[in-house]
Amino acid sequence: MKLSHSFAKTLRDAPKDETAKSAQYLIRAGYVHKEMAGVYDFLPLGLKTLKNIENIIREELDAIGCEELQMSALQNSEPWQKSGRWADQAVDIWFKTKLASGGELGLAPTHEEPITTLMKTYIKSYKDLPIYAYQFQTKFRNELRAKSGIMRTREFLMKDLYSFCPDEASHNAFYHKVEKAYKRIYERVGLGDCTYQTFASGGIFSKYSHEFQTLLPVGEDTIYYNADKSIVLNEEVVTPEVLDEFDIKKADLSSENAAEVGNIFTLKYKYSEPLGLDYTDKDGQKNTVFMGCYGIGVSRVMGVIAEKFADAKGLVWPEAVAPYKYHLITIGDAAAEIGQNLESAHQDTILYDDRDLRPGEKFADAELMGIPTRIVISDKTLEKGCAEIVSRATGETKLIPIEKVTNLDW
Amino acid sequence: MKLSHSFAKTLRDAPKDETAKSAQYLIRAGYVHKEMAGVYDFLPLGLKTLKNIENIIREELDAIGCEELQMSALQNSEPWQKSGRWADQAVDIWFKTKLASGGELGLAPTHEEPITTLMKTYIKSYKDLPIYAYQFQTKFRNELRAKSGIMRTREFLMKDLYSFCPDEASHNAFYHKVEKAYKRIYERVGLGDCTYQTFASGGIFSKYSHEFQTLLPVGEDTIYYNADKSIVLNEEVVTPEVLDEFDIKKADLSSENAAEVGNIFTLKYKYSEPLGLDYTDKDGQKNTVFMGCYGIGVSRVMGVIAEKFADAKGLVWPEAVAPYKYHLITIGDAAAEIGQNLESAHQDTILYDDRDLRPGEKFADAELMGIPTRIVISDKTLEKGCAEIVSRATGETKLIPIEKVTNLDW
Repeated sequence: MKLSHSFAKTLRDAPKDETAKSAQYLIRAGYVHKEMAGVYDFLPLGLKTLKNIENIIREELDAIGCEELQMSALQNSEPWQKSGRWADQAVDIWFKTKLASGGELGLAPTHEEPITTLMKTYIKSYKDLPIYAYQFQTKFRNELRAKSGIMRTREFLMKDLYSFCPDEASHNAFYHKVEKAYKRIYERVGLGDCTYQTFASGGIFSKYSHEFQTLLPVGEDTIYYNADKSIVLNEEVVTPEVLDEFDIKKADLSSENAAEVGNIFTLKYKYSEPLGLDYTDKDGQKNTVFMGCYGIGVSRVMGVIAEKFADAKGLVWPEAVAPYKYHLITIGDAAAEIGQNLESAHQDTILYDDRDLRPGEKFADAELMGIPTRIVISDKTLEKGCAEIVSRATGETKLIPIEKVTNLDW
Repeated sequence: MKLSHSFAKTLRDAPKDETAKSAQYLIRAGYVHKEMAGVYDFLPLGLKTLKNIENIIREELDAIGCEELQMSALQNSEPWQKSGRWADQAVDIWFKTKLASGGELGLAPTHEEPITTLMKTYIKSYKDLPIYAYQFQTKFRNELRAKSGIMRTREFLMKDLYSFCPDEASHNAFYHKVEKAYKRIYERVGLGDCTYQTFASGGIFSKYSHEFQTLLPVGEDTIYYNADKSIVLNEEVVTPEVLDEFDIKKADLSSENAAEVGNIFTLKYKYSEPLGLDYTDKDGQKNTVFMGCYGIGVSRVMGVIAEKFADAKGLVWPEAVAPYKYHLITIGDAAAEIGQNLESAHQDTILYDDRDLRPGEKFADAELMGIPTRIVISDKTLEKGCAEIVSRATGETKLIPIEKVTNLDW
């Protein structure tokens, strides 16, 4: 991809009301555009990054037998009334709207109610279970205050997975598969080392749920942990009763700021019971379906990655999520010719800064944009038969023979 | 893909209020689920079909130099007030909602205003032009009546492309490229033979716009055409003045029902002027950016394809958009073993009906689901060393040596 062909240029300044470092860089580097507080557009580089994260999640969920669907944002009130979540007093982040033909609709902040209703069409017998269905869907949440850039927004891309099992044992088996899949996902997107599965509040139906929390100085949450005992707790569960249960004293727990990047939740019959999602078992008996739900805020994860790795010069993307692997800069005509050919041969992996700018500006933009590996070809490097390869994360610089570089193999 | 692993089973009946043949089949075959009138969920088979259409459109737009982004659904009123399209009297299909922190938001029914506003950040000089930016985005339209299944809905997936050019000449050159890209798109999705580029009303800023209309008995539009003179007109432009201009009499035009599957529109300065999207030309003079917009309702196209080709037994998908190429049915244990291996080797292209059902039910479901090619392996075909290959569209049946079938090569 030639940078001169892309409309989203780097900007000197971010909007003044944008306080999160990640959001400032994402805007200045041309990844996102702020539509209003808590609402962002994804520009070409940002959309590629988001899709890379989405694809990693999709691969890991498909690998454990999940099926992808896509539900609507517009929501009828009925199923939400049955579950008790339609009233604004019960769920205070609803966006609601009116249908021209009469009646009120909501914009889905989550999808437990509609997917439970949908499954009533498809679940009749134990033979229809288990079902694991997920989607990548825009969620709408009417947050009073939106800050932290794309880490907490009013409109965001979420992966939400729902499981429908005949009983608790089969639910637990799948729940553990999801735990493992989530760990692989965070590893693959580059957050593996700093993301912990925590015990979190389970609500009224389960003792605990689990969250995945990434250590982050500006994170909104606080986690308490003891590395020796492998105990990691969300702040809300650090009560005398829970400390007893885990046989640990509060003084033996360290605390750190963290950002939630996923949650998994045993719902039991919370939605299947009020919405009447039953199945007939082998003996012809009616049973209620045992449910779980599993969320990852995809755009939020992108924001956390940006926030986690950014340095004083700009963004630093892990290779698996970066929009391009290589950021190519050439200096001089001979280098430019090599650069043109290199870009033509690898359009999907190379971002070539072919703009008519001084090298210093291009280097600064490369730091800001955070593509993992910079390739610099100049008369000087060509004299040595080489190109210069620079790691964005470490700054490590190597001279590599030009034949290896043109094959992207070193 | 094994059918036993998919939750979305075929249904005997569609909802009673669903009158469109395509919608009845799409629901019965497990492609979509009706959330409410005009609002549908895409189930795994339906989502695959939708994504196939989306990818064809993406490839053709990328090939003419367009860049993909993704804008928000939530919309601030300001840019729409400037263009005169915020008031419900001006645009009667708005869904509006209230922000918890105060103020009214709209759900984008289209994106001219926000993308024009966005481009003010990135367009300063003639060097920044042209720009061709598109998205696949959910649009919300508060239709008073929603019918025709996924052909006309209140929430739908749209591809909208916007062009930003320095002048009319460069706009026209790009406009013609889009015309050609659209023709390739309709050819690739299987609608090439029955889709016409028509002259349509241009609104107040242009003499004509163009629509792409697919001949369809239940289509909502009427087109007038003269095959000899290659004239195709939308009903609204068949006026004495226009007939004069095209030098044709109304009596020489045949009329036929059609469904709009795309439109391309020269906007000129309709949005760039009120929203102040300017650039500085080579001589340092300020000029207004010349805009165009180009839409394809992706889910609508899927509905039109379904409606166009469906027969008395069910859906009939063109191969390029079908969720799978092959629908595999085996009868007997020896055949099942071959079937298992075949599916394992080609999971993305073969849908294997491995359910414990009678062959007759499987055949009926295969007709309903409309996968292009049915492969039947049974003791009877194996006696001849063959499998039976049946075209869903024509019913043509061939016996093909089993070695060729297992390589999907005949």
